[in-house]
Amino acid sequence: MVPLTLEGSYALHQMLRIRWSAWKALEEKKRQALVQEAAAALAALEPSQTAAYTMLGHKCDLMLVHFRATMDELNQVELQLARLGLWDYLELATSYVSVVELGLYETTSKIYKSIEEQGLEMHSEPWTAAVEEELGRQRKAMAPRIYPTIPEFRYICFYPMDRKRGEDKNWYQVPFNDRQKLMHDHGMIGRRYAGKVKQIITGSIGFDDWEWGVDLWSDDPLWFKKLIYEMRFDEVSAVYALFGTFVVGMRLKTDELAGVLC
Amino acid sequence: MVPLTLEGSYALHQMLRIRWSAWKALEEKKRQALVQEAAAALAALEPSQTAAYTMLGHKCDLMLVHFRATMDELNQVELQLARLGLWDYLELATSYVSVVELGLYETTSKIYKSIEEQGLEMHSEPWTAAVEEELGRQRKAMAPRIYPTIPEFRYICFYPMDRKRGEDKNWYQVPFNDRQKLMHDHGMIGRRYAGKVKQIITGSIGFDDWEWGVDLWSDDPLWFKKLIYEMRFDEVSAVYALFGTFVVGMRLKTDELAGVLC
Amino acid sequence: MVPLTLEGSYALHQMLRIRWSAWKALEEKKRQALVQEAAAALAALEPSQTAAYTMLGHKCDLMLVHFRATMDELNQVELQLARLGLWDYLELATSYVSVVELGLYETTSKIYKSIEEQGLEMHSEPWTAAVEEELGRQRKAMAPRIYPTIPEFRYICFYPMDRKRGEDKNWYQVPFNDRQKLMHDHGMIGRRYAGKVKQIITGSIGFDDWEWGVDLWSDDPLWFKKLIYEMRFDEVSAVYALFGTFVVGMRLKTDELAGVLC
Amino acid sequence: MVPLTLEGSYALHQMLRIRWSAWKALEEKKRQALVQEAAAALAALEPSQTAAYTMLGHKCDLMLVHFRATMDELNQVELQLARLGLWDYLELATSYVSVVELGLYETTSKIYKSIEEQGLEMHSEPWTAAVEEELGRQRKAMAPRIYPTIPEFRYICFYPMDRKRGEDKNWYQVPFNDRQKLMHDHGMIGRRYAGKVKQIITGSIGFDDWEWGVDLWSDDPLWFKKLIYEMRFDEVSAVYALFGTFVVGMRLKTDELAGVLC
Amino acid sequence: MVPLTLEGSYALHQMLRIRWSAWKALEEKKRQALVQEAAAALAALEPSQTAAYTMLGHKCDLMLVHFRATMDELNQVELQLARLGLWDYLELATSYVSVVELGLYETTSKIYKSIEEQGLEMHSEPWTAAVEEELGRQRKAMAPRIYPTIPEFRYICFYPMDRKRGEDKNWYQVPFNDRQKLMHDHGMIGRRYAGKVKQIITGSIGFDDWEWGVDLWSDDPLWFKKLIYEMRFDEVSAVYALFGTFVVGMRLKTDELAGVLC
Repeated sequence: MVPLTLEGSYALHQMLRIRWSAWKALEEKKRQALVQEAAAALAALEPSQTAAYTMLGHKCDLMLVHFRATMDELNQVELQLARLGLWDYLELATSYVSVVELGLYETTSKIYKSIEEQGLEMHSEPWTAAVEEELGRQRKAMAPRIYPTIPEFRYICFYPMDRKRGEDKNWYQVPFNDRQKLMHDHGMIGRRYAGKVKQIITGSIGFDDWEWGVDLWSDDPLWFKKLIYEMRFDEVSAVYALFGTFVVGMRLKTDELAGVLC
Repeated sequence: MVPLTLEGSYALHQMLRIRWSAWKALEEKKRQALVQEAAAALAALEPSQTAAYTMLGHKCDLMLVHFRATMDELNQVELQLARLGLWDYLELATSYVSVVELGLYETTSKIYKSIEEQGLEMHSEPWTAAVEEELGRQRKAMAPRIYPTIPEFRYICFYPMDRKRGEDKNWYQVPFNDRQKLMHDHGMIGRRYAGKVKQIITGSIGFDDWEWGVDLWSDDPLWFKKLIYEMRFDEVSAVYALFGTFVVGMRLKTDELAGVLC
Repeated sequence: MVPLTLEGSYALHQMLRIRWSAWKALEEKKRQALVQEAAAALAALEPSQTAAYTMLGHKCDLMLVHFRATMDELNQVELQLARLGLWDYLELATSYVSVVELGLYETTSKIYKSIEEQGLEMHSEPWTAAVEEELGRQRKAMAPRIYPTIPEFRYICFYPMDRKRGEDKNWYQVPFNDRQKLMHDHGMIGRRYAGKVKQIITGSIGFDDWEWGVDLWSDDPLWFKKLIYEMRFDEVSAVYALFGTFVVGMRLKTDELAGVLC
Repeated sequence: MVPLTLEGSYALHQMLRIRWSAWKALEEKKRQALVQEAAAALAALEPSQTAAYTMLGHKCDLMLVHFRATMDELNQVELQLARLGLWDYLELATSYVSVVELGLYETTSKIYKSIEEQGLEMHSEPWTAAVEEELGRQRKAMAPRIYPTIPEFRYICFYPMDRKRGEDKNWYQVPFNDRQKLMHDHGMIGRRYAGKVKQIITGSIGFDDWEWGVDLWSDDPLWFKKLIYEMRFDEVSAVYALFGTFVVGMRLKTDELAGVLC
Repeated sequence: MVPLTLEGSYALHQMLRIRWSAWKALEEKKRQALVQEAAAALAALEPSQTAAYTMLGHKCDLMLVHFRATMDELNQVELQLARLGLWDYLELATSYVSVVELGLYETTSKIYKSIEEQGLEMHSEPWTAAVEEELGRQRKAMAPRIYPTIPEFRYICFYPMDRKRGEDKNWYQVPFNDRQKLMHDHGMIGRRYAGKVKQIITGSIGFDDWEWGVDLWSDDPLWFKKLIYEMRFDEVSAVYALFGTFVVGMRLKTDELAGVLC
């Protein structure tokens, strides 16, 4: 049985490298002008949920996170940024396309059960309508979580992940009730980090190369390590999680852009 | 037993990155001229089944999809596009070569049985002729599906896939009847998305690095996620599917090209 | 037991991308001159078994196939081509180094048996001499197959492959007689494609990253797909074959080079 | 059960290639000036725990190792170095972000037991406070090890590693006591190399693509090989270790920089 | 039990691509001068065990093999070559860092047994001294093999390899006596190629990404294929060997450098 999900904002992560030698070869005046133009553009995007981060290591120097109501708006943001003068001195090292997702393992069985009690046949039109109606209710109730604002914590950690489909250990063949229990236990660990770490899960099946993207925010990057390490011993991660590349960095306010670049 | 297949149009997907800094360094007039030339060329190709898409993320900025009757024509399209002035400001990030394919699991056993009843020995000349005759009939009946026009839906999702040949779980060692049943169940899920998602399967064994390419079109990209996620719990995907890289984007009409590039 | 093999011509596949923007930036006259020089060089190489192909997709635009009696001659060809003016506008995307190989599964057991009947101890000097003598006879008889001319069919498909050495399914641990039977059944499928598809197997153990390279030629590229798909259900491929990257294209006669490039 | 860990200095490894042809194209005077500027900057960073190494092979020519109290300071170092004139002639081939970590397998069970004897419920507030208090004590006692100075040995070896999460052999599913014993035995091997090899383990879960980074220092690089080879037969490595890329090199004092570059 | 090993010369393999278009753009005179400078440098390095090879395929055009007494000397060679004018027209595609290694499976058990008979406790100081003394004796006896000169055969084949650590088939968990027997049988195959193929094994644990590097030399490259193919059916390779990338080429004497480059 497929867990129901709620989707909200579309998300784009852009990981950028600074082409330092070309950038430094520019005249100071030119650089200041380009930074001002870029800072103004970012400042204008921020209220629509765009945030910039200065990142550690060679994978990227900057990361931009954008949440938007539609894919079309994300594409518009991409094109708008590409037209910035600063963009000529950046290199889009990688990116991630996804949509904010709330997995409803806990409520899926309740919804399905209550609909079953109404005597509706699965996937029949009235059944589909009933599920859709319930999802609509949930979507309203959960609106702040599926259309989130970008948390104000200083540090960010992003990584994509899959559920394992090994020859023996295959998440997609685990019975629904067992998956529900595993996800519940997993969530209980997360809850102990409430207030210290804010997590937003985005789904990327059909949109990008992994099944999910995970963003963590915190005011102390050690919490990222502690949380993920503790979860790694939890069965759902220990057995069924495959992890992609991790990036870590810290918030870069619009007016700090010059500090990094100049 | 090998399932019979019908093949139709050859397909080429071209994933392109825009070399923004070189492009933006051109004079406005020059850019307008190059976009006009490219838009005119694409407009001329469209009726032969070429479509352009603006894509999300770093993997590509543009994707061109071409369906043609022969590989030779696809090669001609490649050479014609390479000669465009705009091409100097694009980078062919990746591509996919395949042919529209209709897998006939359901009818293969019927065909083979009916031929068997005629008492023909498998792979004998008359047997081969009988199979070929029946395939010819099917090819005619299925012509609109194997020589498709590109759907008009706004969003596209493309990914390549393989069937798993693991040490224990090996699709190519599953008995024909079991594969037929698994493919049937798989198809039943797809049918529930009729009208919302249009799917074209292309085969690429011998042509490219994966066994199949999947194109999905829809007017709401969430259907891509829902459809693929639901199918992932279906045995044929859960156990036997390996997925490549996913790209997602939206239709770019000829007259919208300037909007993206200028 | 190791199957005996016959080796003949050394083979080099060169996959080349055209640097379109640099190339198109040249004056028409210059381009014509470079194409003429390259066409003349290729025409001179052709009788020694060199052929050019125009390829589909981003992996390469051109492929050159060279068969030569020695590795030294292949190296000479490489150096000669690198000196062409056209070479500055090409990029050697990838390549493959191998030697035409005839696997003698069927005859290995006969040879070994007949030598055993002569009472020779395995790997003793007279045993080695007897095997070598028999191989010499085979080499003469098979000369046209191990020193092949490049087939004149229009389409080509090339891919490298390995035999699987998994923890459970390990080709190199299958008893000789079973391997012989599997290879025999495999060959029977190929035989049904005689006249439609011409196949040349080259061995690359010790020379390149896969164990074998496979070249297929045909006048209809669909035969590549049909043949490889049918074989994929055959046990020796289904269980024991690992495939590399596939490239597909069509013959480019010396006098057609200008048509592609200009 | 999750082993407790102590974290200290954040670590950044920067692997750099020298762009020899651009560098050599500079005038001698300019090169001397850039080396002087870079040497002065490195000399100023050294007391805060920065060290340079000249490396073997193509992976990198230089490696910089930085230990700092915070991620923010590491980011400041990155930005400061990027502004050096020499940086335009270097290429950041790869990097590694982590934090010095002391795994407390041996003491975790003691701590948990002693807290349990106080009758506190796991993960309750007083339990968490008690663990945190004990960790605070350990952190003080271990300060020299978790905030290390960079060893003065001549040679360095760095590699990242993971613990295996295979379908059968999964470190994260091994009972705590067994893991404790395996880590103990592992440590006993390391102890025999005391004085010959200095090892610093950094954790990178949530920060970079592997779970741990390992730095080894020695005055004879053969000890790296002997130590790692011996450990590879130890169960915890033999079964549960996955290794990334290895780099090896030798200390480059600030005043030796000109010797490498000029 | 860990097999004892003897180490000798440190080894560096440098795989280089020629930047043909930049090189050919130079004036003939300049090229001659740069080749002369490089040839003189290589000629001066040769007696210290440096050899050049012209290679087949796209992976590299040239390979330099250096054996030296210390890593420091290898690093000096790297820096010296980087300063050559020719180096600006070469690209270091890849490399390999290792040390000549003689695995003493056959003698390890003898040594350990004889020491055991002296009643010494394993890893005690006298035990370690006794092992070290015996290794010292072996090192002297084996000096010509661990400090080899580069063989004069025309062809070279190089590849790196690992021993498999699969979930079921794990070399590092095979009992010492079984490993000893497997290595013995393996060696017996190699012995049959004596005189035809010269092999030097270098160990790279702690130095590079694979555990061993294998160099083969011969006057007929077919022997590489025959030897490796025969060994692949041998249990130690069939089950426990993982192979990296293979390169093959032929010796390039100092005075032949101009022949390749000009």
